[in-house]
Amino acid sequence: MKIIEIQEKTVPISSEIQNAYINFKKMDCSVVAIKTDVKKDGKFITGYGFHSNGRYAVSELLTKRFIPRLKESKKEDVLNSEGDNFSPEKIWKILMKNEKPGGHGERSTAVGAIDMAIWDIVSKIENLPLYEYLAKKYGDGTFKNKIFVYAAGGYYYPGKDIQMLQDEMKSYMDLGFTTVKMKIGGASLSDDLKRIESVLKLVGDGKNLCVDANGRFDLKTAIEYGKALEPLNLKWYEEAGDPLDFNLNSELSKNYKNSLATGENLFSMQDSRNLIRYGGMRKNIDWLQFDCSLSYGLVEYLRTLQMLKDNNWSSTRVIPHGGHQISCNIAAGLNLGGNEIYPSLFQPFGGFPDLSTVMDSYVTFPKFIGMGYENKKKLIDLLSKLFN
Amino acid sequence: MKIIEIQEKTVPISSEIQNAYINFKKMDCSVVAIKTDVKKDGKFITGYGFHSNGRYAVSELLTKRFIPRLKESKKEDVLNSEGDNFSPEKIWKILMKNEKPGGHGERSTAVGAIDMAIWDIVSKIENLPLYEYLAKKYGDGTFKNKIFVYAAGGYYYPGKDIQMLQDEMKSYMDLGFTTVKMKIGGASLSDDLKRIESVLKLVGDGKNLCVDANGRFDLKTAIEYGKALEPLNLKWYEEAGDPLDFNLNSELSKNYKNSLATGENLFSMQDSRNLIRYGGMRKNIDWLQFDCSLSYGLVEYLRTLQMLKDNNWSSTRVIPHGGHQISCNIAAGLNLGGNEIYPSLFQPFGGFPDLSTVMDSYVTFPKFIGMGYENKKKLIDLLSKLFN
Repeated sequence: MKIIEIQEKTVPISSEIQNAYINFKKMDCSVVAIKTDVKKDGKFITGYGFHSNGRYAVSELLTKRFIPRLKESKKEDVLNSEGDNFSPEKIWKILMKNEKPGGHGERSTAVGAIDMAIWDIVSKIENLPLYEYLAKKYGDGTFKNKIFVYAAGGYYYPGKDIQMLQDEMKSYMDLGFTTVKMKIGGASLSDDLKRIESVLKLVGDGKNLCVDANGRFDLKTAIEYGKALEPLNLKWYEEAGDPLDFNLNSELSKNYKNSLATGENLFSMQDSRNLIRYGGMRKNIDWLQFDCSLSYGLVEYLRTLQMLKDNNWSSTRVIPHGGHQISCNIAAGLNLGGNEIYPSLFQPFGGFPDLSTVMDSYVTFPKFIGMGYENKKKLIDLLSKLFN
Repeated sequence: MKIIEIQEKTVPISSEIQNAYINFKKMDCSVVAIKTDVKKDGKFITGYGFHSNGRYAVSELLTKRFIPRLKESKKEDVLNSEGDNFSPEKIWKILMKNEKPGGHGERSTAVGAIDMAIWDIVSKIENLPLYEYLAKKYGDGTFKNKIFVYAAGGYYYPGKDIQMLQDEMKSYMDLGFTTVKMKIGGASLSDDLKRIESVLKLVGDGKNLCVDANGRFDLKTAIEYGKALEPLNLKWYEEAGDPLDFNLNSELSKNYKNSLATGENLFSMQDSRNLIRYGGMRKNIDWLQFDCSLSYGLVEYLRTLQMLKDNNWSSTRVIPHGGHQISCNIAAGLNLGGNEIYPSLFQPFGGFPDLSTVMDSYVTFPKFIGMGYENKKKLIDLLSKLFN
């Protein structure tokens, strides 16, 4: 049992959208395919991996450091102790050899993409959906094939007015989402409040709306927005300040009685642990959004989930950033609170299998094997074309 | 006044050495040359930049993101308000456009290399050594042309015994260094103590020796080493645990009465601020080792120094990692505590001008213009060959 080929490609996922911090005109994404010599239905099992939007492709890191390390590893060093499957943990160690501690960015994306492909392979070899394998091997054995999802969008872009924002949100509701998320902080507070109110008219209740400042605010602005948002009883108020300014977050949590959410820009267990230690996040109402594809993959994510457990946080407070099938699987298999979905953006990478149905912001999975990529036609078509 | 050419190259700085965490067999470095249309002595002024050892070259990040952003910027957007020099701050903003907050690694190295070249240019246009320009523009006007330096080495490598370690340290003392640093944590505590004692025999007193664990230890091991090291009264005990485990550092500081040092793997003002906020570092005895070339360059470093001031830390507690001339200049112009030097490693990038003399671990600078690269023959020869 061995890896016989590793390929990587860069794919544009650019769009005209903008959040309070960046625009996405030049956004791209690294995609990885790892082919094994394990045959299933007459074909070699291949795993696919990629990373979330918001961070750029990491082709050189993959081709110069991480892929060579994996290619040069000994056959027995990548297998589990039974020798009947690959070991994501051992492979992770190989990838991270000769990498210094700290400095978690970019390389965390590269490792995240490879790690995703490995879990796709492992669950395909097990002939199980990843979520079922995770529940069995890393969880309490129970899994769901139905998880909470919300539709993320509401970006700024040139010429986008209130009517267009409402049309966008209506389109998500037509798809079965009752909970939606929109950007704030890219306009004035009064303009943002008009945008928010226009969406509230559609979704009916604050509990169906999340707002996201993408780390733009200083403490004063964060609190000002908080005061204006608090009466609306929103589902959450996301990433008010710099993701590493735990003090700001902690102060905000004392000044805003409803739910906060953050974590998508913390790319290691250590960074996530610092949020838990110093960020003032409240176990009963706040949300954690760590994204495994940007933060060294699921092997590291398991460490993060263990860290949360050690700190008496429930896994149900985690709703990952990024909108990928790997996070759907983690949510279903390891009892997370749900997953983000971008119905109109960064496609075909995000989402879930084509036969999934969304109702009242819960998505149900059909039967699939592995990550579920083969059950999403546009995605598997793109992957097959990239790596034919 | 404009930039007319930006080039980047990757240069190997590999060696057989090893610390407690990684080996340096495949280590390399990105080098940048930025040519302007400003003429001096009949030649276009060119600035050079590169980054410290321990992190890998970032060619793709430079060529795909940071260099194009600078090339595509408007001429007036890169100049200071007087229009008589380039503005490192404005250039920094251009470089960081469309980069999300958080995730500080790799890209911080790419920006650090470009930023270094910009400061070389700016001080050459001012016709001053960078340290003098920094003192005038960002400091209190006073500068030194003599700073504390220590010789870093004492790595592990295959077959290296006590005698060879002593020979290495003797060679540093022959160069004028009285303070040296050696690695620990790559052997057992008892073996490390033998290594340490062998070096103490040479340098005479604990105050002349620093030890560096490169983030290897958990809290228990960090404290065990601390108990064994404390009676030796070493100059400092460096990076005992993971650089982002501020809690570990804080606990260690309660269990070790002598000086600690850390910070080389914190790559932004925000990360450095978290060390100050949560790491238990003591203003009167501990040392901060932030490295501007790995952490978005001197523009970000000025923010870090301001943050330290806001937190009532003296700049003299900062002795940067990395051994580069930019840190020598910062130390001399902005009153840092000194700089690291690798006399036998990562050459010709580190060090100081050829005419500098080291005595009692203080280095004196000859008169130079800019960063001082043109006064270090092996370095300027390499740079000229790379970018002819």
